[in-house]
Amino acid sequence: MIERLAVVGVGLLGGSVALGTRARGLAAEIVGVGRDRGRLDGAARAGVIDRAALDVATGVHDADLIVLAAPVPTIERLLPEVWAGARPGAVITDVGSTKATIVRAAGRLPGAGGPCFVGSHPMAGSERSGWEAARADLFHGATVIVTPDAGSAPEAVKRVAALWERLGAGQVVTMSADAHDRAVAAVSHLPHLVACALMACVERLEPGATAVAGRGFRDTTRIAAGDPEVWRGIFLDNREAVLASVARFRQSLDELAGLVAAGDGPALEAELGRIRAQREALG
Amino acid sequence: MIERLAVVGVGLLGGSVALGTRARGLAAEIVGVGRDRGRLDGAARAGVIDRAALDVATGVHDADLIVLAAPVPTIERLLPEVWAGARPGAVITDVGSTKATIVRAAGRLPGAGGPCFVGSHPMAGSERSGWEAARADLFHGATVIVTPDAGSAPEAVKRVAALWERLGAGQVVTMSADAHDRAVAAVSHLPHLVACALMACVERLEPGATAVAGRGFRDTTRIAAGDPEVWRGIFLDNREAVLASVARFRQSLDELAGLVAAGDGPALEAELGRIRAQREALG
Repeated sequence: MIERLAVVGVGLLGGSVALGTRARGLAAEIVGVGRDRGRLDGAARAGVIDRAALDVATGVHDADLIVLAAPVPTIERLLPEVWAGARPGAVITDVGSTKATIVRAAGRLPGAGGPCFVGSHPMAGSERSGWEAARADLFHGATVIVTPDAGSAPEAVKRVAALWERLGAGQVVTMSADAHDRAVAAVSHLPHLVACALMACVERLEPGATAVAGRGFRDTTRIAAGDPEVWRGIFLDNREAVLASVARFRQSLDELAGLVAAGDGPALEAELGRIRAQREALG
Repeated sequence: MIERLAVVGVGLLGGSVALGTRARGLAAEIVGVGRDRGRLDGAARAGVIDRAALDVATGVHDADLIVLAAPVPTIERLLPEVWAGARPGAVITDVGSTKATIVRAAGRLPGAGGPCFVGSHPMAGSERSGWEAARADLFHGATVIVTPDAGSAPEAVKRVAALWERLGAGQVVTMSADAHDRAVAAVSHLPHLVACALMACVERLEPGATAVAGRGFRDTTRIAAGDPEVWRGIFLDNREAVLASVARFRQSLDELAGLVAAGDGPALEAELGRIRAQREALG
């Protein structure tokens, strides 16, 4: 049971943490922290949060669980302020899509006697943004990666994992922040950049052709409608792993295009068959 | 009303034409033509077709409407046999994903007094294949492109368009076979190759990372589970337009990756915002 939950950043993810927590009766009080009074008041009127705070120190004061749900660079910038305002023993987590820089930034803040940070990355989202798009069941069935480091108190790690489990996560996986960043560069950031490049390219290549686009094109480019500010933060924060993934992707694309250019039907079909088996194994 | 519908190739698409035709009472009799007696008998027992024929000439005999639903190279190979077996005035169409070579092959067959060919490309499908995956509503809401040429009888074009409309198509668009091939290279073949490259690359780059893949990765790679034989045919048949699309896609990817590498946050966010607007306009 949470006495006071503070959600810093009441958008799609923060709003969904708040709604899910409320729907399952996990917290006595939910405080939303943000910059925009009008937006926060709207979230309060809609029942997403109980109380709004424009000031981080006020918002996180006396909260026993704090969820940072802003874009990655904002989370990094806010950490010292959150740290200073949080009560001793408070558990802080976040929903940032990259983890190494956030975990390292938290590691530089005072340890013993203060709050405790454990990074999280719920692999859930939507191409929509804002608390209006938040859903109590957004994390239902989702994979959530929790990234403790050597300094993380085991009880804090348990508390963060339990939060996601109670919000309906399908699996909570623990790994290091660095391993996380490499994995999500491959399965999340690279696909996002590729979907964006595909959307941009088709609009230039054959303007109007999207009028005859089917479900395949829509599915493949769906994530290209993601929030530009959020993805700017992710790409730049995880730049090295993202660029390494792009380089490897180019190799795979060149190999496939090479088989097409060579007109090598049997090799092309064999490779497509191998890829189909991989995709089918994914479910 | 169709007296006798012959479907050559009773797989996902052919089976769905048959099921949709039956569900809407559009044909008095539906004959399925294929190579595999066991598979065809299964389709007949399941009520997908009324009658099975292993021989093309027998299968298309006396049909007033013939739908060729095999992979593109097979359609091209079968055309002369279909032509020879079809009755005068029979209307022949197909479901091939590329159109220029099929339309040209049909154009070389005897015109006056024989059957009439009008190419079709229903932009519908599934990552599953075989008649077991067929659905009466597969074409519901789909875009279907019809590609008449100078030799197409207007009544035949109308008949083919009417078939797709009655099967529930959301829009039936008419364009030349060449314009079709360039458009689908961009909105269908390129996304398919990209999805395949993404799946292949991630398996190599971070084996095991797919265990934490979310909905974004699943959506972006869904079409990579498409039928290898079908896609081999499509890629090789539309090779030139596919490779031109890949080249332009590489440019778009390089531009985005370049902004990431340069750490140019404002330009990256602006470009992602522009791409989001394009994707949102697509619906």
